[in-house]
Amino acid sequence: MTNDPIESLPAGYVPPSVWTPKSSYGGQFGSINSPVSGARFDRELPVGKHPFQLYSQGTPNGQKVTILLEELLEAGHAAAEYDAWLINVFEGDQFGSGFVDINPNSKIPALVDLTTEPKTRVFESGSILIYLAERFGAFLPTEHRKRTETFNWLMWQMGAAPFVGGGLGHFIKYAPVRIEYAIDRYAMETKRQLHVLDTHLAMHEFLAGDEYTIADMAVWPWYPDSLYGVYGTADFLAVEQYTHLLRWHKAIAARPAVGRGRVVNRINGEPGKMLRERHDANDFLSLTK
Amino acid sequence: MTNDPIESLPAGYVPPSVWTPKSSYGGQFGSINSPVSGARFDRELPVGKHPFQLYSQGTPNGQKVTILLEELLEAGHAAAEYDAWLINVFEGDQFGSGFVDINPNSKIPALVDLTTEPKTRVFESGSILIYLAERFGAFLPTEHRKRTETFNWLMWQMGAAPFVGGGLGHFIKYAPVRIEYAIDRYAMETKRQLHVLDTHLAMHEFLAGDEYTIADMAVWPWYPDSLYGVYGTADFLAVEQYTHLLRWHKAIAARPAVGRGRVVNRINGEPGKMLRERHDANDFLSLTK
Repeated sequence: MTNDPIESLPAGYVPPSVWTPKSSYGGQFGSINSPVSGARFDRELPVGKHPFQLYSQGTPNGQKVTILLEELLEAGHAAAEYDAWLINVFEGDQFGSGFVDINPNSKIPALVDLTTEPKTRVFESGSILIYLAERFGAFLPTEHRKRTETFNWLMWQMGAAPFVGGGLGHFIKYAPVRIEYAIDRYAMETKRQLHVLDTHLAMHEFLAGDEYTIADMAVWPWYPDSLYGVYGTADFLAVEQYTHLLRWHKAIAARPAVGRGRVVNRINGEPGKMLRERHDANDFLSLTK
Repeated sequence: MTNDPIESLPAGYVPPSVWTPKSSYGGQFGSINSPVSGARFDRELPVGKHPFQLYSQGTPNGQKVTILLEELLEAGHAAAEYDAWLINVFEGDQFGSGFVDINPNSKIPALVDLTTEPKTRVFESGSILIYLAERFGAFLPTEHRKRTETFNWLMWQMGAAPFVGGGLGHFIKYAPVRIEYAIDRYAMETKRQLHVLDTHLAMHEFLAGDEYTIADMAVWPWYPDSLYGVYGTADFLAVEQYTHLLRWHKAIAARPAVGRGRVVNRINGEPGKMLRERHDANDFLSLTK
């Protein structure tokens, strides 16, 4: 610990009595954010041949769902076949009328189950994980203690990741300027979260105990994967010190279904290693090793 | 919309290659936050006579659980009797060894179910809501569509509120200085969330449709309650414009169980209107009307 004061605090600011938005804030999402929700243009969603239609992008939240779908297929649940369509959030696809109908919150991932009458919309990655796990009776333990721990850690992830993505990720990568106080705030919280996981995984093989569950699938793409990947903060946060977390992360990364699920709907990364869309198990054969 | 630039951006800041914490950041929680999790002192938790032991504070996340417990009791589930012990997060109670054992993340609320062998720990407000709803078969629909919508909106709340509490609430109330860019960011997102809810509740009586569920109990203490209450931002965000949300909020506020649940484990508010702890239904009789 040092006693250094924060050196770059902004000049004192007095908020107005009623907030109004500025025309743009700069940065990656500065011109796309709005205080008003809802569709901004008409666009129907494409529909493929499989029971599940996924509309998503291969961000950490998107990967959770494609990892589970690939795990279900790997485990022999052929009825989990799916079409994964790209919703490019950098281009505003999430504001099309068809997408807003299935997720009024305009965030990926969103899922449509075509096998129910009427069809069922499922949004929020955590809700989709529960929906599919309940449907196939897989990766959500029925034993009381393990089931409870699965929900504990799944919910932990849902409430924690906004500090990583919407907090640290935003202020270190997407904001138009670097704000020291905000970066400090979210770096500290992200390291605290890494330490919570590391401590727990020092004593348990998986988050819910000795069984791999949807809680692991929810946490894995975020901790520490996103810190090495999209946010480039692995060195900044000294991620290598969390050795138990890294042990767990490496074990899950070696699962074939995870290897497939994590590359679906990706638009960044090495050419030949990512799939923009996925409509068939054979689509993965086109990837280079 | 105006074209005003942000006027108080801080001087350019270049993050170090490896982050280290400063000794203090000022503000309400500036000296309590740490990048290291775990117990900071030894303290056993008290245990009462009822099946459920709740360790919490009457923040929006705490209120979710006491509202559900009171709703269960109101509906005749006498086995939902509980002791609600105060964990004062302003004084660091969440870092005591007993509390960390039941929630390694050191956040309220946390619950212990004494009726299982061994006893079961439940943490994260969303996980506790599911746990109790499943246990008593109440407020979590079994009908496919409503159940899915309940999880959709419950998960929406878990991922959205960190932008309200950890974002807007922090930067407008708890941070040592007002940072215009950060306040703008989180005011915009909070208004977007209010608009999402308002639009949905214009067409539906409750979040999952025509049935009151744990999704309503999760959202209610936050939207818009926290904006009138702890954060004092109702005028700032022009909350009165969200008339459908306010209709829903008022209807739920009129429920007797909600009136009781929302005052448990509160340490602020008018004397005589709040209960620091709750161990018996008769405790509410001491409150002034």
